Amino acid sequence: MLTVNAYAATSATEPLSPITIERRDVGPHDVLIEIKYSGICHSDINHARSQGRPATYPTVPGHEIAGIVTVVGSAVTKFTAGDRVGVGCMVNSCRECASCRDGKEQYCLNWHTTTYGAIDKDGTQTQGGYSTHIVVNDDFVVHIPEGISLEAAAPLLCAGITTYAPLRRFGAGPGKKIAVVGLGGLGHLAVKLAHAMGAEVTVLSQSLKKIDDGLRLGADQYHATSDPATFVQLAGTFDLIINTVSAGLPVDAYLNLLAVNGTLVNVGISGEPLSFNPFSLLLRGRTVAGSLFGGIRETQEMLDFCGEHGIGAEVDVIPAEQINKAFERVLSSDVRYRFVIDAATLAG
Amino acid sequence: MLTVNAYAATSATEPLSPITIERRDVGPHDVLIEIKYSGICHSDINHARSQGRPATYPTVPGHEIAGIVTVVGSAVTKFTAGDRVGVGCMVNSCRECASCRDGKEQYCLNWHTTTYGAIDKDGTQTQGGYSTHIVVNDDFVVHIPEGISLEAAAPLLCAGITTYAPLRRFGAGPGKKIAVVGLGGLGHLAVKLAHAMGAEVTVLSQSLKKIDDGLRLGADQYHATSDPATFVQLAGTFDLIINTVSAGLPVDAYLNLLAVNGTLVNVGISGEPLSFNPFSLLLRGRTVAGSLFGGIRETQEMLDFCGEHGIGAEVDVIPAEQINKAFERVLSSDVRYRFVIDAATLAG
Repeated sequence: MLTVNAYAATSATEPLSPITIERRDVGPHDVLIEIKYSGICHSDINHARSQGRPATYPTVPGHEIAGIVTVVGSAVTKFTAGDRVGVGCMVNSCRECASCRDGKEQYCLNWHTTTYGAIDKDGTQTQGGYSTHIVVNDDFVVHIPEGISLEAAAPLLCAGITTYAPLRRFGAGPGKKIAVVGLGGLGHLAVKLAHAMGAEVTVLSQSLKKIDDGLRLGADQYHATSDPATFVQLAGTFDLIINTVSAGLPVDAYLNLLAVNGTLVNVGISGEPLSFNPFSLLLRGRTVAGSLFGGIRETQEMLDFCGEHGIGAEVDVIPAEQINKAFERVLSSDVRYRFVIDAATLAG
Repeated sequence: MLTVNAYAATSATEPLSPITIERRDVGPHDVLIEIKYSGICHSDINHARSQGRPATYPTVPGHEIAGIVTVVGSAVTKFTAGDRVGVGCMVNSCRECASCRDGKEQYCLNWHTTTYGAIDKDGTQTQGGYSTHIVVNDDFVVHIPEGISLEAAAPLLCAGITTYAPLRRFGAGPGKKIAVVGLGGLGHLAVKLAHAMGAEVTVLSQSLKKIDDGLRLGADQYHATSDPATFVQLAGTFDLIINTVSAGLPVDAYLNLLAVNGTLVNVGISGEPLSFNPFSLLLRGRTVAGSLFGGIRETQEMLDFCGEHGIGAEVDVIPAEQINKAFERVLSSDVRYRFVIDAATLAG
């Protein structure tokens, strides 16, 4: 067992604080990773505060992990010490169901093991990336290509794959018009990825406050959703809308922006029901879809794509002591575009 | 102008009654069709009774039309007198928009002209198939293959294409598991078509009352939705669910029957909002889609497919004087599986 430094939530209401946790011994199929950077995802906050499922405390969040392999198990062939690697939202799955066999471990029919807050196969609770080291089965570790800095790579492991997967599934590419709703952690990567895929990209944001950023990141157009004219002007325009906003949207208004046979994909998570007029789908043959990050094979594909196109997240690297402040700033959308914890500041 | 016999609704509350209507002279691109059979679709009843959009009376319903060409316009090359032909839900569209150019006239961005109850390009109100003759632009007329009787072909023009199009779009075929919700006019054709495409077909019906029919029509399995065990046993099963039921469904319960990346398509029309838990989509990457009949090219493809596979509707041919009684029976789901009016009984 390895005792390592981490930052943990100890209750739903206390600020996160330093802690030590145990990492298991490196098994034959495990790799030990020295974590360099860990992104702060909105889900981390929900989890730490038991919003949604109740958490078991203490719990260490973090599922956007970038680091360096330091030890590999005896049966590991895919990695060697010194490799630049990433770990995302899951660290295990059954490997046997139709989804796992199909490379869609995120949809494992026996449920994947989340990187934090789950019970792993050895009966221990998984603890996430706000720590200095993690031991992960090699099937759930991916290579980070040279050319992406580790801090810019970390958010790709959740925010990147979460937007990459639906862009691929629903055909983003040349000749396609894609709208990205919300220019935050997920949205800014959706813009970069869709642009790199060759699509025409429009940002739909509450205001025009971040328009300069949006255009710099690769958007062709940028519109304020607070302006009712946006919904008139852009009616019937988009082949695909990637909705990264977790708060409930006026769904019919967004469906009406879709072209014939267009798709609205929700990757943001809202507890509210999705509710809309069935004619919003019927009269133009439209589709509403959900998408949950991505499988391991596709995560590697996404990272390779980012390596080829020089894509990384726009990050604000913080020391661990600023995690609680960063949580507050994420909640008030005051981040451009992802806080990433420098794990060296956890070393103690 | 040609004066022809028809059956019309004269108000939202009166029974339909005999009437004569005018058909326009046959223009260069028109064909005059002697109607042989006209199916009774649930939409006809909604229209006749001004449920939804208010109708302009008198109005002649009917958009499942099968007949024989008797006269062709000077510029018509696709048809000659004596041809067996069909007309479905639309008789015109703009021909210029992206949808029309793409063969999806049903999604014409300038709105297609419905077979009844619309204002046609000449300013007159379109009148439907419950009549002895109709004049239609040749672009909106399709060939009915030999081997399908005209009475069995008529319902294919709406019920057939409405189920064929989403089956094709969402990949029905060998190795795919398809559920059809509701074994009525649309549902019984969905079963026949999906079976002929090589898919494994399950009927989900309120009760097991029609199970013998369902299996005979091509279903591999048949389950009662009134039995809660159905929703346990079949969880995560289907690649595609074709929902032909117009009344509101418990959407989450049906979404839960879909496999990973499965699709629920609504082809039945309900005025109620579609409402469901966003996690029902997210956690399995599922989609909800709407679909509105089909384009002309695809309608011809569907008829050719039916010709090759010997598929026609199961019909109950009635004389015109039974139209009002048939309406009542459709509303109480007392039809196996489509009433078709024998237009000879309108001849007077």
